[in-house]
Amino acid sequence: MTTPYKRLDKAQAAVLLVDHQTGLLSLVRDIDPDKFKNNVLAMADLAKYFELPTILTTSFEDGPNGPLVPELKEAFPDAPYIARPGQINAWDNEDFVKAVKATGRKQLIIAGVVTEVCVAFPALAAIEAGYDVFVVTDASGTFNEITRHSAWDRMSSAGAQLMTWFGLACELHRDWRNDIEGLGTLFSNHIPDYRNLINSHTKFTS
Amino acid sequence: MTTPYKRLDKAQAAVLLVDHQTGLLSLVRDIDPDKFKNNVLAMADLAKYFELPTILTTSFEDGPNGPLVPELKEAFPDAPYIARPGQINAWDNEDFVKAVKATGRKQLIIAGVVTEVCVAFPALAAIEAGYDVFVVTDASGTFNEITRHSAWDRMSSAGAQLMTWFGLACELHRDWRNDIEGLGTLFSNHIPDYRNLINSHTKFTS
Amino acid sequence: MTTPYKRLDKAQAAVLLVDHQTGLLSLVRDIDPDKFKNNVLAMADLAKYFELPTILTTSFEDGPNGPLVPELKEAFPDAPYIARPGQINAWDNEDFVKAVKATGRKQLIIAGVVTEVCVAFPALAAIEAGYDVFVVTDASGTFNEITRHSAWDRMSSAGAQLMTWFGLACELHRDWRNDIEGLGTLFSNHIPDYRNLINSHTKFTS
Amino acid sequence: MTTPYKRLDKAQAAVLLVDHQTGLLSLVRDIDPDKFKNNVLAMADLAKYFELPTILTTSFEDGPNGPLVPELKEAFPDAPYIARPGQINAWDNEDFVKAVKATGRKQLIIAGVVTEVCVAFPALAAIEAGYDVFVVTDASGTFNEITRHSAWDRMSSAGAQLMTWFGLACELHRDWRNDIEGLGTLFSNHIPDYRNLINSHTKFTS
Amino acid sequence: MTTPYKRLDKAQAAVLLVDHQTGLLSLVRDIDPDKFKNNVLAMADLAKYFELPTILTTSFEDGPNGPLVPELKEAFPDAPYIARPGQINAWDNEDFVKAVKATGRKQLIIAGVVTEVCVAFPALAAIEAGYDVFVVTDASGTFNEITRHSAWDRMSSAGAQLMTWFGLACELHRDWRNDIEGLGTLFSNHIPDYRNLINSHTKFTS
Amino acid sequence: MTTPYKRLDKAQAAVLLVDHQTGLLSLVRDIDPDKFKNNVLAMADLAKYFELPTILTTSFEDGPNGPLVPELKEAFPDAPYIARPGQINAWDNEDFVKAVKATGRKQLIIAGVVTEVCVAFPALAAIEAGYDVFVVTDASGTFNEITRHSAWDRMSSAGAQLMTWFGLACELHRDWRNDIEGLGTLFSNHIPDYRNLINSHTKFTS
Amino acid sequence: MTTPYKRLDKAQAAVLLVDHQTGLLSLVRDIDPDKFKNNVLAMADLAKYFELPTILTTSFEDGPNGPLVPELKEAFPDAPYIARPGQINAWDNEDFVKAVKATGRKQLIIAGVVTEVCVAFPALAAIEAGYDVFVVTDASGTFNEITRHSAWDRMSSAGAQLMTWFGLACELHRDWRNDIEGLGTLFSNHIPDYRNLINSHTKFTS
Amino acid sequence: MTTPYKRLDKAQAAVLLVDHQTGLLSLVRDIDPDKFKNNVLAMADLAKYFELPTILTTSFEDGPNGPLVPELKEAFPDAPYIARPGQINAWDNEDFVKAVKATGRKQLIIAGVVTEVCVAFPALAAIEAGYDVFVVTDASGTFNEITRHSAWDRMSSAGAQLMTWFGLACELHRDWRNDIEGLGTLFSNHIPDYRNLINSHTKFTS
Repeated sequence: MTTPYKRLDKAQAAVLLVDHQTGLLSLVRDIDPDKFKNNVLAMADLAKYFELPTILTTSFEDGPNGPLVPELKEAFPDAPYIARPGQINAWDNEDFVKAVKATGRKQLIIAGVVTEVCVAFPALAAIEAGYDVFVVTDASGTFNEITRHSAWDRMSSAGAQLMTWFGLACELHRDWRNDIEGLGTLFSNHIPDYRNLINSHTKFTS
Repeated sequence: MTTPYKRLDKAQAAVLLVDHQTGLLSLVRDIDPDKFKNNVLAMADLAKYFELPTILTTSFEDGPNGPLVPELKEAFPDAPYIARPGQINAWDNEDFVKAVKATGRKQLIIAGVVTEVCVAFPALAAIEAGYDVFVVTDASGTFNEITRHSAWDRMSSAGAQLMTWFGLACELHRDWRNDIEGLGTLFSNHIPDYRNLINSHTKFTS
Repeated sequence: MTTPYKRLDKAQAAVLLVDHQTGLLSLVRDIDPDKFKNNVLAMADLAKYFELPTILTTSFEDGPNGPLVPELKEAFPDAPYIARPGQINAWDNEDFVKAVKATGRKQLIIAGVVTEVCVAFPALAAIEAGYDVFVVTDASGTFNEITRHSAWDRMSSAGAQLMTWFGLACELHRDWRNDIEGLGTLFSNHIPDYRNLINSHTKFTS
Repeated sequence: MTTPYKRLDKAQAAVLLVDHQTGLLSLVRDIDPDKFKNNVLAMADLAKYFELPTILTTSFEDGPNGPLVPELKEAFPDAPYIARPGQINAWDNEDFVKAVKATGRKQLIIAGVVTEVCVAFPALAAIEAGYDVFVVTDASGTFNEITRHSAWDRMSSAGAQLMTWFGLACELHRDWRNDIEGLGTLFSNHIPDYRNLINSHTKFTS
Repeated sequence: MTTPYKRLDKAQAAVLLVDHQTGLLSLVRDIDPDKFKNNVLAMADLAKYFELPTILTTSFEDGPNGPLVPELKEAFPDAPYIARPGQINAWDNEDFVKAVKATGRKQLIIAGVVTEVCVAFPALAAIEAGYDVFVVTDASGTFNEITRHSAWDRMSSAGAQLMTWFGLACELHRDWRNDIEGLGTLFSNHIPDYRNLINSHTKFTS
Repeated sequence: MTTPYKRLDKAQAAVLLVDHQTGLLSLVRDIDPDKFKNNVLAMADLAKYFELPTILTTSFEDGPNGPLVPELKEAFPDAPYIARPGQINAWDNEDFVKAVKATGRKQLIIAGVVTEVCVAFPALAAIEAGYDVFVVTDASGTFNEITRHSAWDRMSSAGAQLMTWFGLACELHRDWRNDIEGLGTLFSNHIPDYRNLINSHTKFTS
Repeated sequence: MTTPYKRLDKAQAAVLLVDHQTGLLSLVRDIDPDKFKNNVLAMADLAKYFELPTILTTSFEDGPNGPLVPELKEAFPDAPYIARPGQINAWDNEDFVKAVKATGRKQLIIAGVVTEVCVAFPALAAIEAGYDVFVVTDASGTFNEITRHSAWDRMSSAGAQLMTWFGLACELHRDWRNDIEGLGTLFSNHIPDYRNLINSHTKFTS
Repeated sequence: MTTPYKRLDKAQAAVLLVDHQTGLLSLVRDIDPDKFKNNVLAMADLAKYFELPTILTTSFEDGPNGPLVPELKEAFPDAPYIARPGQINAWDNEDFVKAVKATGRKQLIIAGVVTEVCVAFPALAAIEAGYDVFVVTDASGTFNEITRHSAWDRMSSAGAQLMTWFGLACELHRDWRNDIEGLGTLFSNHIPDYRNLINSHTKFTS
């Protein structure tokens, strides 16, 4: 009667980054810009660190939505990049769905702007298509808390799992012994409190 | 076990605007009045833009609840207008239900004041009657966050989908290429940040 | 797959007021005391107005929890009053359950202090016993927003419906024509904004 | 020992609108965009209604700061318009100061984006130059509450008076009998609650 | 260099209640309506309890501002009642100033709606006229926190003392022994937490 | 169709305290540190008071995560203490699962830092393994409200029950008569408002 | 023109703890009870640590205000203890003023409940009497943020310095070398984050 | 009677960075860690960009306060670095005061952790010593909003000017034409919204 435990597996997961564009980002007001920028870049670093297949897509880059933020393009120079000619739901774009299928993965991690559209629409479509969907709530942004709550409620009711980038990283990594330094560096670069802990620890133990 | 993806279709949707009256609006304190006015008018513009059948209804206009806000009456001069003689739940009014049936639509988009009564009661009744219900959370208002949360929880538990006007517009439009200027104008008129993006873009590309 | 529409019926509903005691009220910090006092008294007036069978119960009046607030005792001088000798969950008290059964009602409206204990415990037990439960979220109070959210989530997951006193009144009344003045007085006494609307209306139409 | 009562006089006041540009507005996050847009347009309508000399100025329109929002340009087609070539403090621009002096007014009403720079710098300079300064806090915006508080504290400590557009309008108008309809229209267009009051009143008294 | 201790004296103080009208009250959104209603009535009870000369004034009762709230009229049936024909600043009305002078008091306690206009304007004028002004911040209301902060800052900078009704009552009363029951009743009627303390105390000590 | 009433039974429950380490605690920012410290120590006192089997576990104590807070170690000197060599999900550690099984309990009460990882991962795994899981939301902490909401939603959707320490204590105790002084002491030590009630009561009745 | 630097000197300072009574504490709602209890006890420990002359006073202990919290009485068994028979302003009590004078100190550190009365009244009177006053804002509590802001503004305008217990401790201590362990213990006992730092440091350096 | 306009001059200003240490940073809870880290690094970049003499100081690096954050040490490898042996107020350390005097500057820009101690103490001492002090409120952090407000009020009352890093940069730079690219880069690196504006502008104009 309840959502079972769907556990992320780095061999089964792919990442979809949807419409993190320079214009659209000015619409995001449910999360502070410094924090949001950090979360999106953390999500990108995470995808690279775990070598997850990653797909980039944008909507109308030549219009007011603006270009993809350069850091994401630089982070994934070889990733499929679908500049959608008009489809608002990325899942309506055949190339996008093909790219997803080409990954061979069944667990889709989705982040984007804005949450109730660019994230929720492909999330709902992917669930319908049989995928397990993990929404990165803190690397997705929208207008305000009402739009956010509505989006989260709609996706959660449909069976999507709401997660945040730190939880994703931990669930994918499973065991610190797989690579202490790698995961530590990811956290140090994106969690100031953790960086401070590491710096204090290093000083006192060296 | 979860709510399936019910996707809005502009050929299947109708809009119900319930009790946006000048007196009742003074009860709304869970959302700022400037923003709420904008959201309600955006919802109206959206309904007109997509040519969705729209039904207006009010409760006790001659009493303290006051008249329908004039902008809504002007926006839908030919819409069915049911001034209910006493029923609190609009669905208890036969004329209202007849008007809904007359649209031939199965997807009902509902907004109103106050959320836990004027929206929740017909929403629950409509679900029971077999309709798919989409609640416009940001064009609906109520006393405070407790009343709001309770209303949202009750409707979501019953299978209603919580959405906001921007998400509705995007899901109905499907593809920017259907009409770039039309949708852009809707957004420019009701999202100051988007209007600024358009104005900057126009200046720099002309 | 979802909670069906359980509609309150004044011939089917009973009210349980649990542990609104002078000491325990100092624990309530998730809602402002002026508002909370108003909501509790509104709930009492509502129960009297609709002549719903009402049951009062308290926990340890001679100890620090303190006596029942006098206004509730005065409002229901003839109601069953179960001063529990020790049971924390009122449903564990046989007299209380007997009093509930004696009402012959199947819809239980529950308010109390504190939410996650005095409301949630009998609510969960009543659902298990086959009752339909309606929690009055704004006439129930607790320590803070974390305790509140947890209590609401636990009860909602178990099938309780979260409502507030204004929604209860509207759902029970059904139609203004049943008694315009009575319902108007209830609202005027407990909703300052509505009282102002009535006063303005009276002046301008008389 | 305290700031004396400096009362606004419509024959003595001029308005300075500083850097309300389409790009800079995306930096404003201490006030909701719907409300902020309304406040800025209300300030403009107020200046026109009271026929106050008004000066527009911008910073780097060809760069990312973007053009002046078109509504302000349209509202004051004949106002002095100083597109500053580089000075961050408008008071450092000779043409701007000349335009201020040319008004012959000694009471300066200042609004702009962002508060701690585009408003505070000319405000502090104008006070030093002997003007009485009235800051329109709700038609000025900035990054967050820390930057806002710091800006307000610095200006208030220097003798600027913090006001909002509604207070300005009331202090300038002095007496409703000077023009009931005019002031009423200004309020109706920019205060939804006041608009509702007027619409209810009109219905019930006509 | 700082504001000296101006201590309220019940033989020196008068109360000015400005524009608590049924329409204007719908504009108040910086304080919850239940709490605000309580504070205004507490202020009225306080004025009566200490037998302070009290002056009522309103603006445009026949228009959308609406009538004075009936409770205040009933509380002070014999008080000077100045229905201003148009002056926004009550101090611009000769009858009002005459009524103030007629009290012979030099300490003015002012509350009203909205804070930055109906309170701040007469407060600033009264200070200029040589009175000591005490603003009742919690029995005065306005649109939002920005308008409130600006009003408080302007009045405080001019030498007004910001107080709340409870502090006023305590400073006027000086010593519980002057009348324990009277002051206790005032607090019991308007502070739910205090009422609970009294009820617990009564039970345990009787 | 809904989560049934799973009632805590002190003969069936065990407590898992996961990663309350001195370094990790600096990551907790969704709850004030004074309150969080109190809640964690209340949870520990509760476990001891009800003599619930308790298991301690930590992650990387020699690294920046830091040692277990000493108060927990002192509270449970004989409890199983699993210092995990690397597994992020405690349930992936065989010794931990063995320790859980060794308790013979089927109701698991889990608290930890951070909520979406150290609590959510073992909670989801335990549910999958057939246990009933009760999450102590106020003795678990994480980065912010987004991470918290996502964690709560994921766990609740999977069937975990969200509770707080006070509710746990009440549900486990069942009846005050089992030990009035014991439970009262627990509350007095960890709820300042309750302590005040007791102190007032003692004074007035002695 | 500004308040000069009045620096606390442990040879010049005395502490006044006003009306921290078990009943009155239930009125404090501008600060969380766990945090407030900690701050008050930290203030007491601080006074003892620096051996500052400390005066206790209460108002109506036999009435609903309740007794002094026992921890304070225990902390200062030999301190002057003035149970005021009725004076609301402690400074109106001759014994209290005598006790203050008897300390021979000119710097008065004041904390109490509620801020705008029990703290503000003696603070204003003490300033008038020529003392330097330091208000402990975080060991003083009141009804809400409006009463708090008003109290702080009134006291600050009169020349009181607003401080918190941690700042007081640091200004009194001057140099860690005077007693590292003593000050560290004070911080460890009342600042959970600092305690964690110490525990981590101890582990890693031992 | 008011603070005059003290305008920052890059030839007169020096920067004091006080106690930004890895341990102490865990105490900062009045500002989000992502934003605070950004503000501190922006302050450092600003000091370097304007080539302002900068002084670093720390308190007890070998103890739990931890080492200076490495980024600051790296940013100013040749700056005076005063590791204070025990003085809590940096101004009590002779080497620190000497280093300040050696800069020959009279305008001191101060940021640090925590605000009410490490910033306020030297700020008040420097004002007393005749310096003009500019507090960087958003690059200074402390425990909570009460400690912050108290610190700001104490410093502002003493004549310190509250500013934020962005305002400092603008006041120091005076005119964009002095170096458009340099200032633009500073903003792009530390203001995500500005970075987005630049990226959109670059795309659309190239």
